[in-house]
Amino acid sequence: MRAAFIGLGVMGFPMAGHLQSAGHQVTVYNRSAAKADAWVERYGGCTAPTPAEAAQGADVVMTCVGNDHDVREVVLGVHGALLAMSAGSVLVDHTTASAALARELAAASAASGVGFLDAPVSGGQQGAEGGRLSIMVGGEEATYERIKPVLAAYGKAITRIGPVGSGQLTKMVNQICLAGLTQALAEALAFVEHAGLDGSIVLQAISQGAAQSWMMDHRAGTMLDDKFDFGFAVNWMRKDLSICLDTARSLGASLPVTAVVDQFFADLQRDGGGRRDITSLIRRLRGSDVATPAVD
Amino acid sequence: MRAAFIGLGVMGFPMAGHLQSAGHQVTVYNRSAAKADAWVERYGGCTAPTPAEAAQGADVVMTCVGNDHDVREVVLGVHGALLAMSAGSVLVDHTTASAALARELAAASAASGVGFLDAPVSGGQQGAEGGRLSIMVGGEEATYERIKPVLAAYGKAITRIGPVGSGQLTKMVNQICLAGLTQALAEALAFVEHAGLDGSIVLQAISQGAAQSWMMDHRAGTMLDDKFDFGFAVNWMRKDLSICLDTARSLGASLPVTAVVDQFFADLQRDGGGRRDITSLIRRLRGSDVATPAVD
Amino acid sequence: MRAAFIGLGVMGFPMAGHLQSAGHQVTVYNRSAAKADAWVERYGGCTAPTPAEAAQGADVVMTCVGNDHDVREVVLGVHGALLAMSAGSVLVDHTTASAALARELAAASAASGVGFLDAPVSGGQQGAEGGRLSIMVGGEEATYERIKPVLAAYGKAITRIGPVGSGQLTKMVNQICLAGLTQALAEALAFVEHAGLDGSIVLQAISQGAAQSWMMDHRAGTMLDDKFDFGFAVNWMRKDLSICLDTARSLGASLPVTAVVDQFFADLQRDGGGRRDITSLIRRLRGSDVATPAVD
Amino acid sequence: MRAAFIGLGVMGFPMAGHLQSAGHQVTVYNRSAAKADAWVERYGGCTAPTPAEAAQGADVVMTCVGNDHDVREVVLGVHGALLAMSAGSVLVDHTTASAALARELAAASAASGVGFLDAPVSGGQQGAEGGRLSIMVGGEEATYERIKPVLAAYGKAITRIGPVGSGQLTKMVNQICLAGLTQALAEALAFVEHAGLDGSIVLQAISQGAAQSWMMDHRAGTMLDDKFDFGFAVNWMRKDLSICLDTARSLGASLPVTAVVDQFFADLQRDGGGRRDITSLIRRLRGSDVATPAVD
Ligand SMILES: NC(=O)C1=CN([C@@H]2O[C@H](COP(=O)(O)OP(=O)(O)OC[C@H]3O[C@@H](n4cnc5c(N)ncnc54)[C@H](OP(=O)(O)O)[C@@H]3O)[C@@H](O)[C@H]2O)C=CC1
Ligand SMILES: NC(=O)C1=CN([C@@H]2O[C@H](COP(=O)(O)OP(=O)(O)OC[C@H]3O[C@@H](n4cnc5c(N)ncnc54)[C@H](OP(=O)(O)O)[C@@H]3O)[C@@H](O)[C@H]2O)C=CC1
Ligand SMILES: NC(=O)C1=CN([C@@H]2O[C@H](COP(=O)(O)OP(=O)(O)OC[C@H]3O[C@@H](n4cnc5c(N)ncnc54)[C@H](OP(=O)(O)O)[C@@H]3O)[C@@H](O)[C@H]2O)C=CC1
Repeated sequence: MRAAFIGLGVMGFPMAGHLQSAGHQVTVYNRSAAKADAWVERYGGCTAPTPAEAAQGADVVMTCVGNDHDVREVVLGVHGALLAMSAGSVLVDHTTASAALARELAAASAASGVGFLDAPVSGGQQGAEGGRLSIMVGGEEATYERIKPVLAAYGKAITRIGPVGSGQLTKMVNQICLAGLTQALAEALAFVEHAGLDGSIVLQAISQGAAQSWMMDHRAGTMLDDKFDFGFAVNWMRKDLSICLDTARSLGASLPVTAVVDQFFADLQRDGGGRRDITSLIRRLRGSDVATPAVD
Repeated sequence: MRAAFIGLGVMGFPMAGHLQSAGHQVTVYNRSAAKADAWVERYGGCTAPTPAEAAQGADVVMTCVGNDHDVREVVLGVHGALLAMSAGSVLVDHTTASAALARELAAASAASGVGFLDAPVSGGQQGAEGGRLSIMVGGEEATYERIKPVLAAYGKAITRIGPVGSGQLTKMVNQICLAGLTQALAEALAFVEHAGLDGSIVLQAISQGAAQSWMMDHRAGTMLDDKFDFGFAVNWMRKDLSICLDTARSLGASLPVTAVVDQFFADLQRDGGGRRDITSLIRRLRGSDVATPAVD
Repeated sequence: MRAAFIGLGVMGFPMAGHLQSAGHQVTVYNRSAAKADAWVERYGGCTAPTPAEAAQGADVVMTCVGNDHDVREVVLGVHGALLAMSAGSVLVDHTTASAALARELAAASAASGVGFLDAPVSGGQQGAEGGRLSIMVGGEEATYERIKPVLAAYGKAITRIGPVGSGQLTKMVNQICLAGLTQALAEALAFVEHAGLDGSIVLQAISQGAAQSWMMDHRAGTMLDDKFDFGFAVNWMRKDLSICLDTARSLGASLPVTAVVDQFFADLQRDGGGRRDITSLIRRLRGSDVATPAVD
Repeated sequence: MRAAFIGLGVMGFPMAGHLQSAGHQVTVYNRSAAKADAWVERYGGCTAPTPAEAAQGADVVMTCVGNDHDVREVVLGVHGALLAMSAGSVLVDHTTASAALARELAAASAASGVGFLDAPVSGGQQGAEGGRLSIMVGGEEATYERIKPVLAAYGKAITRIGPVGSGQLTKMVNQICLAGLTQALAEALAFVEHAGLDGSIVLQAISQGAAQSWMMDHRAGTMLDDKFDFGFAVNWMRKDLSICLDTARSLGASLPVTAVVDQFFADLQRDGGGRRDITSLIRRLRGSDVATPAVD
């Protein structure tokens, strides 16, 4: 297929690479052109100076930029991709964004005969690089079936949840689980430290039971080692939680622990730790004697 | 070995049974005698009218009662087990209790030449019945090595954490993880319901990633089905969190999310749900089925 | 002066009335015309079919509508007031809105030679009717001095805080104080009820000391009486807290208790209580009158 | 009257002084004798080497020590006051302690024909020194009426709430109000700082309205000035909140914001600020660039 990929950040760069490697003809666009050039040098394919030019003639256009605002710019802006897309092609948004945006894009796409899928991902940089992302998709069944094989280039677990917007809603569910769970783990491990226990033995004892989680299996060790220069950044999490909390507001749902953990992330940002992994929540609980040099 | 088992509740009854089945000579004591009689009828063994008489001549004495107060009564009380225990025997407390109590019992035991292990368990009623409990042990290495084969009658994963009290501290770490994680899952699933998503598809999409947890794997479905007549009761959790919060106070640790979730459990108790599983936290987030009529 | 007043809600209706009564020539606009007609019938003055027509020839234009979106519509929309305002006139926004909106409106006004003040109020319906509102003003000193005498028609305490936006920021400070303080009072009074104390004696004993607050003096009694059909509605508070939390996000401030109380207000909305006074927070702490039957 | 006063701390020292100055014959006891000697030097009266000897022959005995444990020691211990008190005399406990302790002391007193009042105070060091404390009293009406004139030596507002224990419960109500209210004020003022507003103008604008509180009137200025070497210490507040939370547990009340603020106080203690005033909550919200040298 002819594909366009817009947004070559930490996630988009390797995703677009997998697409090209899988045999598709990929044209990329990135706001700062240097990344696009580096991508072509590494993977082949073409680059284009605007989203619209990248999308010209494409069967499928992927976007993976920062937030709602950014997606609007690269899709609906004066040089946006949608302008150039032809009837029968499909727009897939991999950005973590709002369900309202998904519905807005679906409507705009439909007006041009273009299909739309909201398809946020999880699995992080590692998942993107390894081509093993989880992809949560909202949109029409037929569109999904047509595009699923293309997404398989970088997706390991691809699930259609339901109509447009439900991909984004599912990603929010994921982030809500993650926020409270990570804070709970941080409280538990800071307690371990205050109690003077050997963290690795404690974890060995409890990690087979009801307190087990992916975060405990994969991050408790690095938390105890005070290592946070990897994973999913606090700044991204705050953006995501902002979407969750706004959405809960309109759905009439209440998220008390999510809301308070969001404020704890604000503490981390305020102290210069916005680029650290979300597990740096443990730092807030350790007290101030240990100096906290910022990552960035 | 000659063993005594004190406290034949939901947990102790099957634990003592496994002990007898494993070939030990078990004498049981239970405050309300009917349970002790039922136990003998089912498993054989003997019953005694007081903890002291049960402990007479035993190589090892297990206790599994409710809380610190109860343990003091059955161990240190006027008919308490310790009175009757002889030098060289070992006292094992399976109750979830404070580390301070563990240290108090260890000292009292030592004064009589008796060994002591604090050995709280996790795995619930199912784990006790199946003989597959996790046991977190604090106490001297030599004592532990001697008793470990006996505990294997009902323990699948038995870990010595460190000195006396560290078994209890580890159980607290487990409960701290569990409290925040369960509330996070409850918020996520109530959000699913408010958003009108299909919960089972959402779970399928996210349960392989970073939001995964034992609770998600084993309880999300029952939460969505509004089923809470099993598992670990809110009343027990509140007792355990009370120990966690008191201990954090003396250690100088801070547990903000644990503390607020503890209050949410208070809401559940107040509304008559103290015996339901802790996953009933989702009920608080669903709203009152009986509509509260608006003022206007 | 010739004045226009746009938005005759619970607050705007009496405010515009005081303006007219103070001798100004007021033209009003309200989206649903019936209220505008009722206003003219009661106070005299004129009505106009659009914000622009109301603003035509006015020396000062006041707006008091719902939120950022609404203000944009009545000021910057196709029939918006700003279109019709002439150089030298002043726009005063009494809506509780964002500081960002204030800056946006100030810039748009300046482009037409129009002055701008953000001037949110507090004091509620009673304060508006009695002409005793507190008004927190952001904007240029000279503009403020010129308009202050006009605002005195319905303002008792009128304070210029600083540059454009600082009126709105001050209102947010007010709401942040109020959210946590009201929840604290609710927790205290629900505790009084659970303890079976006589609330009026308790309040008499503590209301002269460090726990005193305006809310305790004026609302504790009505809270104990379960009366919430007056005051400041939960729905409005949630809008205001949404602005506070968004602003804190961009300022790098953290508001943990405000965030969690905002979610408690969400509980009240979900249960149909959005129009009750914010002191109805106590209802969440009282438990469901309809007993939730225990599982066993 | 012949009075004994036990516990000459920050509060007890001046309280006992007012008692002596009011014409009563006061014998004091303090654990560390130096304070007792200093007291006699300043006010006259006598000192005794044990609580029992101080209480010998007294018509009324006051205690003002640290916590439940301390009160038990000075009242019920081997040299405790109750031993020496004669039928018809009255024991008044001014310590902030549990209602359960009050009931326990009342029962023990009754067994010796001694009357009992639980009478915790508020007003702080200033109030004690100025003789202007608020006193919240639980106990029998007749006992209260007899003792009230004596308490007037240091009490400005003296209120009998109800039966034994209700003095302590009322003090808890006071502290619950205070915890959430102080955190709310701290969030608001840290927001002021982040927004770059002039705090004194903001306070002038909002302090007449619904956000007003004693804390705003008397402490907002010192909070903005980063001054915390006075007032009511974090360590005392944590003790008091521990009593509140335990009591809520047994009453079936839920205190979510109180519980989370209690953990924020734990943060302050952990960072060495236990002796600062409770308004130092604002420090947690300011970020870590500003070094925080501990008071003690
Ligand atoms: N990083 C992670 O672990 C995960 C991230 N996500 C989500 O994926 C999305 C992308 O994340 P990530 O790749 O890490 O982000 P990066 O910051 O690394 O990259 C963002 C990309 O978007 C582009 N972009 C941003 N704004 C605009 C705009 N207005 N116009 C044009 N291009 C724009 C950037 O261009 P330029 O290079 O010019 O700045 C860049 O290519 C986000 O929504 C994130 O939440 C999801 C799962 C995990
Ligand atoms: N249930 C669970 O899923 C789990 C429980 N635990 C912990 O295990 C312990 C036991 O729990 P569980 O078996 O469920 O509790 P139960 O309530 O079922 O049983 C409690 C047992 O303790 C006895 N007991 C209580 N107080 C006294 C006393 N003062 N004197 C003598 N006997 C007393 C009871 O006797 P009587 O029959 O006369 O009332 C009963 O045998 C608790 O500490 C709990 O926290 C740990 C992990 C999981
Ligand atoms: N400080 C304040 O602003 C307020 C305090 N309170 C409450 O009043 C009570 C007293 O506070 P404050 O005066 O500030 O406390 P201090 O710490 O200044 O004084 C405590 C007093 O209790 C004595 N004491 C403590 N433990 C024992 C014991 N086991 N046996 C004998 N004496 C003992 C101390 O003796 P020693 O001198 O030997 O240490 C000292 O006289 C507390 O319950 C506090 O919560 C109430 C309102 C305001």
